[in-house]
Amino acid sequence: MILISDNIHIVNKIIAKAIENLDPEPILDLTLKIKKSGAKIIDINPGPMRKDREKEMAFLINTVQEATGLQLCLDSPDPEVLEAGLAFCKKKPIINGFSLEPHKLDKILPLAVQYETEVVGFLLSPDSKVPHDLDERLSLASALAEEAKAAGLAPDQLIIDPVLVPISWDDGARQARDVLACIRLLPELLGFPVKTIVGLSNLTSGVASNDSILLLEQVYLAMLAQAGLGMALLNVLRRRSMATGYLCDAIQNARVLSWAEIKI
Amino acid sequence: MILISDNIHIVNKIIAKAIENLDPEPILDLTLKIKKSGAKIIDINPGPMRKDREKEMAFLINTVQEATGLQLCLDSPDPEVLEAGLAFCKKKPIINGFSLEPHKLDKILPLAVQYETEVVGFLLSPDSKVPHDLDERLSLASALAEEAKAAGLAPDQLIIDPVLVPISWDDGARQARDVLACIRLLPELLGFPVKTIVGLSNLTSGVASNDSILLLEQVYLAMLAQAGLGMALLNVLRRRSMATGYLCDAIQNARVLSWAEIKI
Repeated sequence: MILISDNIHIVNKIIAKAIENLDPEPILDLTLKIKKSGAKIIDINPGPMRKDREKEMAFLINTVQEATGLQLCLDSPDPEVLEAGLAFCKKKPIINGFSLEPHKLDKILPLAVQYETEVVGFLLSPDSKVPHDLDERLSLASALAEEAKAAGLAPDQLIIDPVLVPISWDDGARQARDVLACIRLLPELLGFPVKTIVGLSNLTSGVASNDSILLLEQVYLAMLAQAGLGMALLNVLRRRSMATGYLCDAIQNARVLSWAEIKI
Repeated sequence: MILISDNIHIVNKIIAKAIENLDPEPILDLTLKIKKSGAKIIDINPGPMRKDREKEMAFLINTVQEATGLQLCLDSPDPEVLEAGLAFCKKKPIINGFSLEPHKLDKILPLAVQYETEVVGFLLSPDSKVPHDLDERLSLASALAEEAKAAGLAPDQLIIDPVLVPISWDDGARQARDVLACIRLLPELLGFPVKTIVGLSNLTSGVASNDSILLLEQVYLAMLAQAGLGMALLNVLRRRSMATGYLCDAIQNARVLSWAEIKI
């Protein structure tokens, strides 16, 4: 399971202000913490860009990639923001992402084909709603894979995100169960070794952080790993969650554990 | 997933001394803590009995079952200890357990048939060795299920234990991975909804208890749950491990989480 940082996000006010001022220091500071965490990829969510889009993207991407050399994941619903970002990445980034929403099929999916990158495909309805049940998730996955194939995307460029919702939602536990089942069933459903990703921070979103909710995140991450999840997007500064990812990986790859690598 | 206490065990010196002296107080004290932990079944491992076998078993079983009313799991490789225990249980206990070792097939498996109880069957070779790999585990499972059927045991009386080994063993991580795969594959292999159990404390056995090793226990328990494990035998006084079991169960049964139930 590849662990991807979701920390560089516009909802972080320090990041928002740094982008606005084109001030690299706060971003550099966070980026170095992310690198130290063991994250393998850094997701960058710049939010809507207000001023000079290209200048802001160049600033953000250059600051992060020069500090770490890690692969990036460009996270935006705006194809122009994504395209601006693609130009500045030294390593091929992941595009995050598209869905069955028509304007994303039209504008974002082709970017991945053109730039030959991996791209995250969300299991959302064409009007951007979270699926009601497992059956709907699975039919959305079939439709999404069809669209990707028709657009010329190779199966190994598609990373399916089954869309995890907050546990605090009325049906949060049921949705969490459906996401596990979906990940387990996708390879058989689609007939190829489907790459998958989950936005783990969604699970605990809206709940004040405490030991119990953090344990839920760890427990659910281990369940995701066992279900066959390929990539987890998470707050990589949560050490126990990162250690969970490390432990799952060691067991799944039958590697001898290094206790020194677990810093919790 | 049903959580079973492994705390009443002869290796606990306080328990050993209490059995020797037929002193109920230390056992009662521990039993009440076990009940409070949320355990649903209590495993009783009296060790080899030195004096009056029946008197010791009666003392131990009565002390525990009167304090809690919980179902018991009689844990001994000695058929005579098990048979003595069966007579004193008010609720049908689980017998823990037999394997392909000839004297256990001859003496312990028939007890489960006779008393119509569930019985744990260990995936050990006829000479009591841990299987080398997943294939060997699966063929031991087939052989064990055959023997159980031939002896007249119903499929829902058999609880298969794939035998977890300490993570500190050279091949500990690989064995842990094989145990997960075995649990996942058993229903299809044997053709019925196979009950399973794992002795979770084995994983961390021989390693000094610290935050990292306890996290490993939690992570692995969540992986076991996702693999389909039915019962976990564990140190129920490890609160985070118990909370892990509760969280997995809530997600797998799509139940709304009660944060008040998580005491960590």
